[in-house]
Amino acid sequence: MTTFVTFEGPDGSGKSTHLRRVAEALRERGLDHVSTHEPGGTDLGRAVRELFLSPRCRTEDGMVEALLVFAARRQHVREVIEPALAGGRHVLCDRFTDSTLAYQGYGRGASVDALLELDRLATGGLRPDRTLLFDLPPDQALARGQSEKRRNSAGGLDRLDSERLDFYSRVRDGFLALAEREPGRFRVIDASGSVEETHAQVRRALEGLFR
Amino acid sequence: MTTFVTFEGPDGSGKSTHLRRVAEALRERGLDHVSTHEPGGTDLGRAVRELFLSPRCRTEDGMVEALLVFAARRQHVREVIEPALAGGRHVLCDRFTDSTLAYQGYGRGASVDALLELDRLATGGLRPDRTLLFDLPPDQALARGQSEKRRNSAGGLDRLDSERLDFYSRVRDGFLALAEREPGRFRVIDASGSVEETHAQVRRALEGLFR
Repeated sequence: MTTFVTFEGPDGSGKSTHLRRVAEALRERGLDHVSTHEPGGTDLGRAVRELFLSPRCRTEDGMVEALLVFAARRQHVREVIEPALAGGRHVLCDRFTDSTLAYQGYGRGASVDALLELDRLATGGLRPDRTLLFDLPPDQALARGQSEKRRNSAGGLDRLDSERLDFYSRVRDGFLALAEREPGRFRVIDASGSVEETHAQVRRALEGLFR
Repeated sequence: MTTFVTFEGPDGSGKSTHLRRVAEALRERGLDHVSTHEPGGTDLGRAVRELFLSPRCRTEDGMVEALLVFAARRQHVREVIEPALAGGRHVLCDRFTDSTLAYQGYGRGASVDALLELDRLATGGLRPDRTLLFDLPPDQALARGQSEKRRNSAGGLDRLDSERLDFYSRVRDGFLALAEREPGRFRVIDASGSVEETHAQVRRALEGLFR
């Protein structure tokens, strides 16, 4: 049995760091796996991500963004995720459909029901076996995310950086609402502490999941 | 009353030439109008078009293509088409949703019902008042389209050029099936004759439509 695990939460929440640590632990245990991320993970996904961050994508419309993201996601599911799972490899994925529901739905106001219909058309409603939600108050996430960005790109602010704090509050509330709706799949991780404190929660949240 | 007219059919069918002639005729009659095209018509649309033609978009999946195209279309409808119609201007549009149904649906085998659901989510199912379908046998369309391309881009073959003739046959059959389903909206134009012969049909197909 292969397992599909997603890592969700705001930029700066440490989800990518912890995904790498989980991947390392799987490698040490000799468990075959694929680490991937959205948007990205395929050529088309990387192109969509560039488009998304460029000034050419001047839209505030959550549904326009969601259509682009679901194009990349469908390709990602068909090219990477499904073949890996079918081939006996566990999949660790940094962001997936819950991000679209939180950012484009709760954040930008696109109808969550419409996004779920879109998800059904694009991915057949594929859901992870387990989703770790790295929860962090928006001001902390923004501060951490910005200093990460500054290290990565010499301080240029992209379109998504310039979103305001209340947007991130809506996104956080959205993530928590999604987690509440599916307690069997979600584990909420308090990401406000140290890396080690967070890692201990991640271990517990994944206990018994990989075989 | 403003009128929304779309020009559909294969590349090489003359639809863009005839759109320009109709635009000219409207100008001469002092009728306010906007000429636009898909994909394109907005910054996002042009970016999606480039992506679509680039080797990075290595997908044969009609639904992936349709998600990209509908992202551009939603932006186009909200940014260009709806404001023009609401502002009292007629709209002439080179390609619209029927192209997606024909190319990605009938051509690439994506479910036409799924594409219609996607259309409802993306554009609210917006339909033109009149659609001119420039019909041409696939071999003629391909020959004309290729010589046009060669003039425009010094002979480079893009991904869409390299599709085979049977793809274009399915697309043509798809267009004709759509026209048959909505005879009130569609007018099928035989585009195999001279520009003047075709133009005479276009005039008849639009008679009494613009006021």
